[in-house]
Amino acid sequence: MAGRNGLFVPGPTNVPDRVLRAMVVPMEDHRSPRFPALTRDCLEGLKAVFKTSTATPFLFPSSGTGCWEAALSNCLSPGDMVLVARFGQFSHLWVDMCHRLGFEVQVLECEWGEGAPLERYEAALAADTAHRIKAVLVTHNETATGVTSDVAGVRRAMDATGHPALLFVDAVSSLASIDFRMDDWKVDVCVSGSQKGLMMPAGLGVTCVSEKALEARRRTARQPVCYFDYIDMQNQNRNGYFPYTPPLPLLYGLRESLAMLAEEGLENVFRRHAYLAGGVRAAVQQGWGLEVCAKQPQWYSDTVSAVVVPAGTDAARVIDRAFRRYNLSLGAGLSKVAGKVFRIGHLGDCNELMLMQAIGGAEMAMIDCGLPIEPGSGVAAAQRHWRAHEAEASGTTGGM
Amino acid sequence: MAGRNGLFVPGPTNVPDRVLRAMVVPMEDHRSPRFPALTRDCLEGLKAVFKTSTATPFLFPSSGTGCWEAALSNCLSPGDMVLVARFGQFSHLWVDMCHRLGFEVQVLECEWGEGAPLERYEAALAADTAHRIKAVLVTHNETATGVTSDVAGVRRAMDATGHPALLFVDAVSSLASIDFRMDDWKVDVCVSGSQKGLMMPAGLGVTCVSEKALEARRRTARQPVCYFDYIDMQNQNRNGYFPYTPPLPLLYGLRESLAMLAEEGLENVFRRHAYLAGGVRAAVQQGWGLEVCAKQPQWYSDTVSAVVVPAGTDAARVIDRAFRRYNLSLGAGLSKVAGKVFRIGHLGDCNELMLMQAIGGAEMAMIDCGLPIEPGSGVAAAQRHWRAHEAEASGTTGGM
Amino acid sequence: MAGRNGLFVPGPTNVPDRVLRAMVVPMEDHRSPRFPALTRDCLEGLKAVFKTSTATPFLFPSSGTGCWEAALSNCLSPGDMVLVARFGQFSHLWVDMCHRLGFEVQVLECEWGEGAPLERYEAALAADTAHRIKAVLVTHNETATGVTSDVAGVRRAMDATGHPALLFVDAVSSLASIDFRMDDWKVDVCVSGSQKGLMMPAGLGVTCVSEKALEARRRTARQPVCYFDYIDMQNQNRNGYFPYTPPLPLLYGLRESLAMLAEEGLENVFRRHAYLAGGVRAAVQQGWGLEVCAKQPQWYSDTVSAVVVPAGTDAARVIDRAFRRYNLSLGAGLSKVAGKVFRIGHLGDCNELMLMQAIGGAEMAMIDCGLPIEPGSGVAAAQRHWRAHEAEASGTTGGM
Amino acid sequence: MAGRNGLFVPGPTNVPDRVLRAMVVPMEDHRSPRFPALTRDCLEGLKAVFKTSTATPFLFPSSGTGCWEAALSNCLSPGDMVLVARFGQFSHLWVDMCHRLGFEVQVLECEWGEGAPLERYEAALAADTAHRIKAVLVTHNETATGVTSDVAGVRRAMDATGHPALLFVDAVSSLASIDFRMDDWKVDVCVSGSQKGLMMPAGLGVTCVSEKALEARRRTARQPVCYFDYIDMQNQNRNGYFPYTPPLPLLYGLRESLAMLAEEGLENVFRRHAYLAGGVRAAVQQGWGLEVCAKQPQWYSDTVSAVVVPAGTDAARVIDRAFRRYNLSLGAGLSKVAGKVFRIGHLGDCNELMLMQAIGGAEMAMIDCGLPIEPGSGVAAAQRHWRAHEAEASGTTGGM
Repeated sequence: MAGRNGLFVPGPTNVPDRVLRAMVVPMEDHRSPRFPALTRDCLEGLKAVFKTSTATPFLFPSSGTGCWEAALSNCLSPGDMVLVARFGQFSHLWVDMCHRLGFEVQVLECEWGEGAPLERYEAALAADTAHRIKAVLVTHNETATGVTSDVAGVRRAMDATGHPALLFVDAVSSLASIDFRMDDWKVDVCVSGSQKGLMMPAGLGVTCVSEKALEARRRTARQPVCYFDYIDMQNQNRNGYFPYTPPLPLLYGLRESLAMLAEEGLENVFRRHAYLAGGVRAAVQQGWGLEVCAKQPQWYSDTVSAVVVPAGTDAARVIDRAFRRYNLSLGAGLSKVAGKVFRIGHLGDCNELMLMQAIGGAEMAMIDCGLPIEPGSGVAAAQRHWRAHEAEASGTTGGM
Repeated sequence: MAGRNGLFVPGPTNVPDRVLRAMVVPMEDHRSPRFPALTRDCLEGLKAVFKTSTATPFLFPSSGTGCWEAALSNCLSPGDMVLVARFGQFSHLWVDMCHRLGFEVQVLECEWGEGAPLERYEAALAADTAHRIKAVLVTHNETATGVTSDVAGVRRAMDATGHPALLFVDAVSSLASIDFRMDDWKVDVCVSGSQKGLMMPAGLGVTCVSEKALEARRRTARQPVCYFDYIDMQNQNRNGYFPYTPPLPLLYGLRESLAMLAEEGLENVFRRHAYLAGGVRAAVQQGWGLEVCAKQPQWYSDTVSAVVVPAGTDAARVIDRAFRRYNLSLGAGLSKVAGKVFRIGHLGDCNELMLMQAIGGAEMAMIDCGLPIEPGSGVAAAQRHWRAHEAEASGTTGGM
Repeated sequence: MAGRNGLFVPGPTNVPDRVLRAMVVPMEDHRSPRFPALTRDCLEGLKAVFKTSTATPFLFPSSGTGCWEAALSNCLSPGDMVLVARFGQFSHLWVDMCHRLGFEVQVLECEWGEGAPLERYEAALAADTAHRIKAVLVTHNETATGVTSDVAGVRRAMDATGHPALLFVDAVSSLASIDFRMDDWKVDVCVSGSQKGLMMPAGLGVTCVSEKALEARRRTARQPVCYFDYIDMQNQNRNGYFPYTPPLPLLYGLRESLAMLAEEGLENVFRRHAYLAGGVRAAVQQGWGLEVCAKQPQWYSDTVSAVVVPAGTDAARVIDRAFRRYNLSLGAGLSKVAGKVFRIGHLGDCNELMLMQAIGGAEMAMIDCGLPIEPGSGVAAAQRHWRAHEAEASGTTGGM
Repeated sequence: MAGRNGLFVPGPTNVPDRVLRAMVVPMEDHRSPRFPALTRDCLEGLKAVFKTSTATPFLFPSSGTGCWEAALSNCLSPGDMVLVARFGQFSHLWVDMCHRLGFEVQVLECEWGEGAPLERYEAALAADTAHRIKAVLVTHNETATGVTSDVAGVRRAMDATGHPALLFVDAVSSLASIDFRMDDWKVDVCVSGSQKGLMMPAGLGVTCVSEKALEARRRTARQPVCYFDYIDMQNQNRNGYFPYTPPLPLLYGLRESLAMLAEEGLENVFRRHAYLAGGVRAAVQQGWGLEVCAKQPQWYSDTVSAVVVPAGTDAARVIDRAFRRYNLSLGAGLSKVAGKVFRIGHLGDCNELMLMQAIGGAEMAMIDCGLPIEPGSGVAAAQRHWRAHEAEASGTTGGM
């Protein structure tokens, strides 16, 4: 097929050429005296991204899923109770993992499209006077529905009830794209991966662990853990090494992507994501007259939008048409929303021109599938949004 | 700046990842017994692209400009007369080179936006009963104005007058994108470069030389020539080598781009270019209500469109805005049409989604500069064109 | 530092340029209809490397260590007994993992430098009439000491005693370099990684699982497992997908390295490793008058040689000198043999010239550290070996 | 073939991974406001390499041969006389070019293996009282014979005779490896290429032109010139652009290689080349008992050594054996010394370990061809040299 694929699944995201280039490295001795500088650049750079000065970032050779498991296995004991809200496929999968690893799971079932239910979290915590709940799990950005939750609100709920549980946050599709604050929100474990806002291929589980969580690992946790052991990792990282052979190209790539984030400035990165997301939502709502899956503006995600197709249309057909006819990769609806939505990822190394591909291509595919969409309508709405918000576009301008 | 640059200058064009990857090679001995296989793959592959079984392709470490000089210096003698039409910056520069190298130049001056004036070529040839004209020069695709000329028509004019001059064709921005026929049209030297339809970085002068032209080099030409000597090149190429160290990564890249062209099929490549160009022209004419620089449909180029901005607008401002605000690289108007046009290259590794960037981005930049353009209008027109011409889109579809 | 680093740690090994190049890929949708072809190429190619037609290969985003854990966690239940020999750092670490994951471990302690003690394995199995041992663990190639064990012999011991335990083999530093036979030896889980004989960066855990082991996973195993769950992986792989985002560049690289192995021919690859290892051992023993750590020729490893320095010399000084002065990376002695040996990896993408760097550089470093080594002596011995065994060198010759 | 090729032809030289990586770039608009920074980095960096503050460096898309032609065509007029010494294949080819371009050539014929004959240059200049000689040509480092000439001595001869001719120097295989001084030696045109000491692929002609030479171009020169016109180039370079599309990857690579040279320090680079060359010559002379082609130590080249094989041996057989059996690429003897020498390039990104491949591999190939060489003898001699000259090795050490 001629020309580039337009990649707008919410992950892996587009890897900048600069990062791609940085990964073209010969192998080297990962136990040499020269190696620790690389490790440290990565781990120090991550602290800024996690907004922490007190917690410890770790890089596991794994997907983000591995870091979910790491959080549970390092900090808990068999049969421990966890409290978690389910409102999309990824929060669902984390719930599922909790079950499979043998924990007792108190699930707050929500409609898909809603975010973390702060009152219900608080109610559950308040009811748990025996403090049987050992960990509170919350998905910062539910990638399946395009919903961003209020993690600070969950923390407030915990504080309000004086509950001592650990706070675990899935920030896989929010980290480095939507404001996340490890220290301010007193998050105990933040779980993420390399292939979203960090603009890298998958392969690095990226996580950050509070002192409190590490203390739990050392003192109370009795879940079996070895490959994902924080302590092994910490002991080796301390000197700049890893407990096993790390994936060198990914470390070099991460160093470069962290440098890019620092150069743009993390707050500018967040602002850019909000600005670009605004254009996508304008296309969906004002241009096409459709809705996003997120049920309220407070939950609109700045990294992924799940577009609800009209009843009677199979969103999978739109996705298939977009891919085969226009070389456009949209995200599929998963599980409960399969066939009902297609998703546009607008995170990582992204700008207006790139999103015009997603919008313009989705437009054509929808029309081809018989949807009553006006050609160019989404693009026009996005253009209007971006033109009207130039001041927020700092990250995408500056050709000179 | 976040996100990819949208590159739509008519050259260098976007290098496919597959070609980029093929160029990541360690150096090697260019005189080894293994090397000739690479040379031969490149030269044989080029024969198909030039549509020749009788002429000899050459690769010079140079830009396409070098191949202009090679044609003149190999086949002519000091003071020889050449006949050439001037209708844009690149035909102008070739004329200029003829003067500077000491030839007598009979120039057919045309309006910029017109193509090769067949009748005037024929008249000039008919008038030259003494056959003082040794070479007829024609620019197949004038990159500055987006004009494609009828090379076959020039050949017919030569045949009609029984004129024995050599026929030199500049196919820099047409080769491998618009039908070109070395043998059918009895072209004596075709001049091109790597950075357009061949989807490569600049750095390889790509040319093809008829037996008649080689005979002129051997027997009659007395212009000094050394670096660009066809005979040195032919003598070494015959065994798979080069007279001097060749740029290895570019040869590896060319082999890959030739493989891609062969896989898509040259006729499909041409069809795709026409299909994509149709969408761009629909945007310009139907969407924006503007005109292209090419004065008649017969001259519309399928590789580059020069968009004429309304009088009173400086096209350079549009280009500057597009670059700085939207990270979009459009081609500038050159010389006579500076400020009057901006150019959109739609050649090489290109598809609908990519062109939606050019169209949508130019749209925003023009509106920002005060032009009365309706948001989304160009995109909508292009979408309509592409949706209506699916059958011609073979090259861009086939995700499976 | 000018010039290339000479990399002879036993892993990561040198990645061929061809594989490095194959990894320079843009991201793509790992759930597209095009993706499964890649997954299948990798998994089918691995079957040949594992020499299996009945077992199922898996690729986990992890290091090889992760696959150790996968084997234990998928197939066993808390408190199960495993039988394992310890004769080097890596067999030690596997033992350690067994303890930490809560298994009962029967350890056959051996001297470092010895291989798997077949009689003791057999005796232990014979004694276990109650069949409390659920898994027999053996390290095919102990990377720390350069010892290759007789896995077929362990299988014979199991068969001789009619013991039904599962057979787990660590082939991290032998797979694709030393003959390994999943089916012939009835191995139940073979554990390996991408960064050794597969000539890739680390980052892919490469494992292969018998039907019997999968049956154990489905029916009897009760150890918690989620990230490394064979069943999740099998269910997704069946259709060409992964349960979570896979590391795309590594998959593309693996496909290429598998193609290279197939082109050379697996038996030729083994022969080449033996041939090259012979040269290294000639250098050590005949050239330098030193010994390798492996105590008997039957255990000599064809992928890594641990060179024992004379008593009173600190091998770490030699390694440090080699690195800082000559840009040569040798493997360190680990744990019990720290300071006593340095290691030369001679596996993966390797040839005579490359090993001449390791030998010649180690020679200089040893002399610099005061060892009574004759300059050039090791190189000369290796040269003699390689010149005398040309017939076995097929993999390294054939410039044409 | 398994493992890396050992590349020791004197060019192209080994491209450092860092430079290879820098060349993996998407295309961009070479007329954008961002582009000039790249041009300037390259041209400013070259000034340091040429040791000039007054002359103007140029980069032509061409091989070094193109820059020979540029020098002659820009500065001279048809029929002008040039004075040049011929003592190897490359000085021969330059002489040949002078003839073919129509100049009158006064050739100082020397034995191959000798350097520039200072007295004869001076005598010829003194005899030319009419100042018919317009340019004096000298090859700084004759790549075919491994001979470095005394350019400063040629300048002294010119000054001693008060001769106003221009001084053209071929520094193709010396620039950035052996001390060259544009300003101190009052060189008028220095000709070089990217694929030697600059550690790049071929494809960039690298040249530097004095004000006096530019003046000649502007005022007196009447040789036809267009593609290689200094003035066109200077006019565009002044603003950071090129007269035609430049080969972008090569410019990015050059910027990186210039940065590497600056980091190591040019004098350290020269010292490293001398140090490494000393080891190679020790191998040839002390180890193998052979001689280099350069007839006197004053002419020994620090970038390439031509090893004279014993009479009765065909050096081409050694080269062929080295390539096919050991994957080692040695340079061939050219023209007069064909079959008599093989050449080892030791320039660019090189260190001891790499040269041990060349020496150890050549050793094996020579023995295989029946030469009475002691295994390991060359390696041992080189080791002794390098160990004894640690202080000069700064460029190759410093792992930390």
